[in-house]
Amino acid sequence: MKIVCYKDKILRAINSVVKGVASKTPMPILEGILIQTNDNEIKLTTYDLEIGIEYIMDCEVKEQGSTVVNAVMFSEIIRKLPDSEIYITLNEKNLLEIECEGSLYKLATMNPGEFPELPKIEIENSIEIEQNTLKNMIRKTIFAVSTEENRPIFTGCLFEIENNQLSLVAVDGFRLALRNVYLNKQTNNFSAVIPGKTLNEVNKILLDSFDMIKIGVSKNQALFEMDNCKIVTRILDGEFLNYKSVIPNNWETRIKVNKTSIQDCFERVSLISSSSIEKEKKYPVKVSVEIGKVIISCTNQTGDAKEEIYVSTEGKNIEAGFNPKYFLDSLKAIDDEEVFIEFGTSISPCLIKSVDNNNYTYMILPIRLKD
Amino acid sequence: MKIVCYKDKILRAINSVVKGVASKTPMPILEGILIQTNDNEIKLTTYDLEIGIEYIMDCEVKEQGSTVVNAVMFSEIIRKLPDSEIYITLNEKNLLEIECEGSLYKLATMNPGEFPELPKIEIENSIEIEQNTLKNMIRKTIFAVSTEENRPIFTGCLFEIENNQLSLVAVDGFRLALRNVYLNKQTNNFSAVIPGKTLNEVNKILLDSFDMIKIGVSKNQALFEMDNCKIVTRILDGEFLNYKSVIPNNWETRIKVNKTSIQDCFERVSLISSSSIEKEKKYPVKVSVEIGKVIISCTNQTGDAKEEIYVSTEGKNIEAGFNPKYFLDSLKAIDDEEVFIEFGTSISPCLIKSVDNNNYTYMILPIRLKD
Repeated sequence: MKIVCYKDKILRAINSVVKGVASKTPMPILEGILIQTNDNEIKLTTYDLEIGIEYIMDCEVKEQGSTVVNAVMFSEIIRKLPDSEIYITLNEKNLLEIECEGSLYKLATMNPGEFPELPKIEIENSIEIEQNTLKNMIRKTIFAVSTEENRPIFTGCLFEIENNQLSLVAVDGFRLALRNVYLNKQTNNFSAVIPGKTLNEVNKILLDSFDMIKIGVSKNQALFEMDNCKIVTRILDGEFLNYKSVIPNNWETRIKVNKTSIQDCFERVSLISSSSIEKEKKYPVKVSVEIGKVIISCTNQTGDAKEEIYVSTEGKNIEAGFNPKYFLDSLKAIDDEEVFIEFGTSISPCLIKSVDNNNYTYMILPIRLKD
Repeated sequence: MKIVCYKDKILRAINSVVKGVASKTPMPILEGILIQTNDNEIKLTTYDLEIGIEYIMDCEVKEQGSTVVNAVMFSEIIRKLPDSEIYITLNEKNLLEIECEGSLYKLATMNPGEFPELPKIEIENSIEIEQNTLKNMIRKTIFAVSTEENRPIFTGCLFEIENNQLSLVAVDGFRLALRNVYLNKQTNNFSAVIPGKTLNEVNKILLDSFDMIKIGVSKNQALFEMDNCKIVTRILDGEFLNYKSVIPNNWETRIKVNKTSIQDCFERVSLISSSSIEKEKKYPVKVSVEIGKVIISCTNQTGDAKEEIYVSTEGKNIEAGFNPKYFLDSLKAIDDEEVFIEFGTSISPCLIKSVDNNNYTYMILPIRLKD
């Protein structure tokens, strides 16, 4: 194998696939990048048995061939080489020679025959969506994905396509994040739960551009397909929460508030709420809505916090306890200047919604206040 | 106690003293900031029994008094308040009330009478130097300070004033960093070894400005004195290395090289040299000087690195082994475009020096190459 390419181009390819490399594995081959030539292209592949990533790039191929090289070493060396032409050759001793200006590196390689094959996918359903839209939706729901392995289905994010609308839903037992977007093309209804870990990687690879990404699903696998890059992942098995049935449709109290103001209040109050000396004890923050204002407060051994902001209110007065972190996570994921916050009783979930549309709903469960 | 002040002003004061707060201490009072009013000023003090920091600022004092409040909580709350006027009051329940627009915080306080007094210093010798110059000198020597507690004197940095020249010297048994600067005022010769930990904090407080700082020393203590801020620290006891006697005066081989080029080579080669699977084994990097070029190379189980750069050479050919990290630390601390690197034999130390002046000398001890 012998190829010639420019540093920036192969570095972009490596950066895309390197996210699929297994980090702690008893199989060293999974710490590698599979490099395969094909006429005037090379294909880089990584696969940690959960996520597989393939990247194809044009390249001057002087001699066809394939090899597997340690991903971290290979990417670090390429990254630090000068911005110039790089000659990459598999020599007769099976060392990968990397040559660039005055630099010559030789890396041990592994047998490409031992690299596991990526699963083949028979796509049953698919949608296309702009990369920046998907990136945005992932970023704004993924924080609510559960990290607890005892209910594996909630370690994933639901992709639901219904009536040409894509909804992403994440839920961890304490809160729910929901983002919606309308699709341009007529598509079948279908749904799949994609592992949060995969979405983290997809998010890093997605560009902030209007380029399209195709998401296809088979029975057990999903495929994210971009221009040069494909990501294969397993789908989580099991019944996801029937999220529509748990989101309240009515409110007793509703406020319309400047997002940044209330976010700042929660940030400050959470300094007190999270400073408890008895680490295991959680001190909820009390949210009280009175006519024309909201008071957010918290008391524990370290001190006392009280924030008052003037807002427009509708409905009854209410008092309820919350974990401020959940409010903060949701508020940070919102770009709007103003939001609605809806309350039921002091033991029913609270919703954060858009003032203008139904692009998002964040739901937060209350914590019982101490008397 | 009751004071009124603007957020940015008190935050600057807090940021300066907070670096002197003890982090893990059985004495909670040392995690506090002592706040004392004095007419129309307040003084903030922190002291971890090694470093003491005092900061004085003008302030509207409505009621004189003093208190001690947890430094982390106090600074975090002030940091997150809006940019506005802040009212700080010690109330009748000994809680510190912090009020700003719609926010009201109450923090537990401690008895100011229990806060340990900073040591009094009888200054015997002192110098004045511009803050940015000192900051620069500290930053460019401190990396060579030893972190091994078995020779405590080397965990400090020597400040030596001789013939109106200030030298900072740090040494850890494997390398030495020396920076010199001429002082503007006539001063006595004297020297003191300041703990590296203190210099780290001093470095953070120093401004990138031409404002002066006064460094005074007594028998056991040193004092760094800026406009509003004083830092008191103990001096390390013991005999520092007679550094002048260990720095070679002659060379057998000398190269003149572009600093960035050779730094990049060491960075790349160190990817291989530090990737050894047998963690305990150190693979030195081999530096070979031939007429008109330097070859930097390394071989271990993961691979092979070889860098060749063209340089102007004087004297004999030479081959010696080094830890590339020491070269990198020193080269990163140099702003010059070109440097001299001087070698003796393959077992004598190597020096990196300025081409134009004697502002700095970095010395690196060789490692024996395996045959």
